[in-house]
Amino acid sequence: MTEQSREPSGFFAAERSAEIVAASFAGAEDERLREILTSLVRHAHAFVKDVGLTAEEWAAGIRFLTETGRKCDATRQEFILLSDVLGVSMLVESLNNPADGESTEATVEGPFHLVDSPERELGDAIGEGGEPCLVTGRVTDTSGAPVAGARVDVWQADADGFYDVQRPGEVPGGNLRGLFTADADGRFWFRTVVPRHYPIPTDGPVGALLRATGRHANRAAHIHFQVSGPGIRTLTTHLFADDSPYLDSDAVFGVKASLIRTFARVDDPDRAAEHGLPNPFRHVDFPVTIRRDASV
Amino acid sequence: MTEQSREPSGFFAAERSAEIVAASFAGAEDERLREILTSLVRHAHAFVKDVGLTAEEWAAGIRFLTETGRKCDATRQEFILLSDVLGVSMLVESLNNPADGESTEATVEGPFHLVDSPERELGDAIGEGGEPCLVTGRVTDTSGAPVAGARVDVWQADADGFYDVQRPGEVPGGNLRGLFTADADGRFWFRTVVPRHYPIPTDGPVGALLRATGRHANRAAHIHFQVSGPGIRTLTTHLFADDSPYLDSDAVFGVKASLIRTFARVDDPDRAAEHGLPNPFRHVDFPVTIRRDASV
Repeated sequence: MTEQSREPSGFFAAERSAEIVAASFAGAEDERLREILTSLVRHAHAFVKDVGLTAEEWAAGIRFLTETGRKCDATRQEFILLSDVLGVSMLVESLNNPADGESTEATVEGPFHLVDSPERELGDAIGEGGEPCLVTGRVTDTSGAPVAGARVDVWQADADGFYDVQRPGEVPGGNLRGLFTADADGRFWFRTVVPRHYPIPTDGPVGALLRATGRHANRAAHIHFQVSGPGIRTLTTHLFADDSPYLDSDAVFGVKASLIRTFARVDDPDRAAEHGLPNPFRHVDFPVTIRRDASV
Repeated sequence: MTEQSREPSGFFAAERSAEIVAASFAGAEDERLREILTSLVRHAHAFVKDVGLTAEEWAAGIRFLTETGRKCDATRQEFILLSDVLGVSMLVESLNNPADGESTEATVEGPFHLVDSPERELGDAIGEGGEPCLVTGRVTDTSGAPVAGARVDVWQADADGFYDVQRPGEVPGGNLRGLFTADADGRFWFRTVVPRHYPIPTDGPVGALLRATGRHANRAAHIHFQVSGPGIRTLTTHLFADDSPYLDSDAVFGVKASLIRTFARVDDPDRAAEHGLPNPFRHVDFPVTIRRDASV
């Protein structure tokens, strides 16, 4: 073998690096996979070149990813948290569910939708751990027609800022989670507690990243919603409380103005009694407008 | 709070997403960290937009990273393997150690330099598991002066394609690894086995990625070298065997033409006896030219 014959295009050269690596994926049967990997390699290599990444920085990146992996288990998803604080989750959600001026805007799912919500009856309390409140709403399509029997999945943190899965043994599984079926008019209602702002988990690599960059870890107060059903496009969103701090600096960039609501103070003994709530109580209404999806 | 006051710049908008997220790092004290994160976010968001990443594809990416993390342990580094097969490791190595036409070229460290090599005497055999051979070399600086006492760390796979850490209990720890100290003339020599091509580990997510993209997992036959010492710039490289398959399609893009050598067949009973080798034997010479580094 001569020296010359050893210089085929397959050999690595920094100036053509992304092209060389992308070419290695030419045999992928799945065209979409090839497209994604080609773009991923192109951007990853451009990043390394743009910042002139040193070997020590590369090693620090490998350590960071390894520690992120080590932090993941059945109830903790540190990679989703990382995607969240880098705004990647919110970007994916926004691109896939662009605001259309008609339907309710989407936001991130977050890392705590790991367990199935317990099936509950309309009007049930989903759990405890804070100031009682009533949530009402109605699922309609963009023509205004009710979506009878829509599935409304809700989950939220308690007043101390923890989801049930973060407090195994302390609170029952399913606390502050519920899966409801809207009535024939698309209406849903349930009892829960007023959400409070809380920090995302900071005892892992993502928390260290936030501290190193002077960012706070707080999420504005919210209740998660995932609304689905036959013939409708699944919507993943939050309802935000308008008196929450951090609305304009949410740690995961999740806030959209159209999703902010007032948790009103209601003084109405009859209505309180009807819903099994103390009087006065808090109430928020969250109408959900959802797109019909012919492809579903 | 009016609707208008709820639209500060901190709210997310897909069209300005990278800018918004980058701004959140403005408080980082470490300017280099801020620079790296800003570029990372810019490229990550551009990637998501360029391919129009769907929520399902994002979720598949999270699963891939999570499984990659789950595969890592004390003797397995799946994130390095991922960086390797995407050509990122080779790019970082090449940028940080650009070919200068004078010093020996660098290549990737790979994921198997996880344990300290045992200290050995010049001439020792570093282990067994293949056809015996003699490796000789001399460490000089770019002026041609010997680097007396240079530390020469070598490691390689056995003829079955496994490093010692992949066969715990089957082979002694430190098999086919050795840390040598060059003599006063910069020379080193040791006995080992002729390296063979072998597949990188394919029982994890990286292996699945290679299969899905029709790529083979093989590395061209090589011996790893890491040469260091006071006043010299550490060099991480390989010595490749010129009769190996996969030289032009190495799974981690590690091959450089200048690093390919012939493992010659030598018929010399006296020399064989001198080195404690059977006759005939194989021999490769790997002179290493290294840069002095004023900053070290």
